[in-house]
Amino acid sequence: MGSEALLTNAIPKPQNIENVAADSSQISENGPPIQNCIMHQLIVQGNIQNGHHIENGSLHENADGFSVRRLQLSDHKKGFVELLGQLSPTRPLSQEEFQERFAELVSMGPDHHICVIEDPVSCQVVATGSIFIERKFIRGCSKVGHIEDVVVDKGARGLRLGHRVVKHLVDHAKATGCYKVVLYCKPELREFYQKCGFMEKNVQMAFYF
Amino acid sequence: MGSEALLTNAIPKPQNIENVAADSSQISENGPPIQNCIMHQLIVQGNIQNGHHIENGSLHENADGFSVRRLQLSDHKKGFVELLGQLSPTRPLSQEEFQERFAELVSMGPDHHICVIEDPVSCQVVATGSIFIERKFIRGCSKVGHIEDVVVDKGARGLRLGHRVVKHLVDHAKATGCYKVVLYCKPELREFYQKCGFMEKNVQMAFYF
Repeated sequence: MGSEALLTNAIPKPQNIENVAADSSQISENGPPIQNCIMHQLIVQGNIQNGHHIENGSLHENADGFSVRRLQLSDHKKGFVELLGQLSPTRPLSQEEFQERFAELVSMGPDHHICVIEDPVSCQVVATGSIFIERKFIRGCSKVGHIEDVVVDKGARGLRLGHRVVKHLVDHAKATGCYKVVLYCKPELREFYQKCGFMEKNVQMAFYF
Repeated sequence: MGSEALLTNAIPKPQNIENVAADSSQISENGPPIQNCIMHQLIVQGNIQNGHHIENGSLHENADGFSVRRLQLSDHKKGFVELLGQLSPTRPLSQEEFQERFAELVSMGPDHHICVIEDPVSCQVVATGSIFIERKFIRGCSKVGHIEDVVVDKGARGLRLGHRVVKHLVDHAKATGCYKVVLYCKPELREFYQKCGFMEKNVQMAFYF
């Protein structure tokens, strides 16, 4: 499905990057070990500049400690699959199953991209979205980006993480030369996507086996 | 775009397989050389059985001489790109451009499939549709088929060629293990796709660069 579980009736949970850096022991006690946390990595590596950091050549917003980055194998243990379960029925995946599908998608290079946002305190994945790039013959061998599976954790809604995910995916589509990006969503999410710069187009039809 | 140009207000143009076989010289005079025509190939190879033929391991309907087959490089000279122009703005492609995109898509194996229907008399491509298979993590590493760019030539509408194209693509999705197939279309095509077994689902949103 396209983008179905998003930010409504959510309570903002602002995170403060300075507080995270200043009292890591407290975080370590309250959540996963700090050495596993992306925020800790960023602080140690000192690669936060002007509210952004650069990782693997991609620019990620990082104003409040919630950074958008590409899906990693380690996200299997950070609640990525469980997060998708808030969008669509999803059984648990073994490490091997996850790794196999991950490898298939990575082999597609920039034609398939999954991004995540990790909570800097809990070190759990709290938002994700994916895009695949379709190569066409029309419009002079054009490309179209298809956004899929956008979901924000119920406990992290109201932080505009969905906007960041969608913006990241749209930016990816633009960088790969797409002339447009499309997605399908429930009617009640029209307004959210309109705020992200999308306009309503056609209707979606589905055939189930 | 999904599936936009289809069979409305069309005049049926029945083709008779026996006539084609019986007077090939006439066809040769009125259209492209008969040796380039798929009908001629089928007759010579004698692989028409019970209204179907098998090519490259795929079953194609062939009751009236209009067979569904996979896109071939030679379709560049059979009006394939011009046919797509009835769906979306499409400039002419050079042989090299066509070949390059063709090779990219073929390298995806069954994860990308374009089918065409060739007119057995004119030997021109008169219908086409494509599908790409998206690999997901949800639903136990499931797959979803995405149908795109379904179009039937204005002069060949009313022959149910659109139904054949869609059925072929749905069959392909099923064969590759998809749990569903989706597409988006203009609201006026709802009924056509409902007759093909689809049900209306969500709304499509688009972002243009």
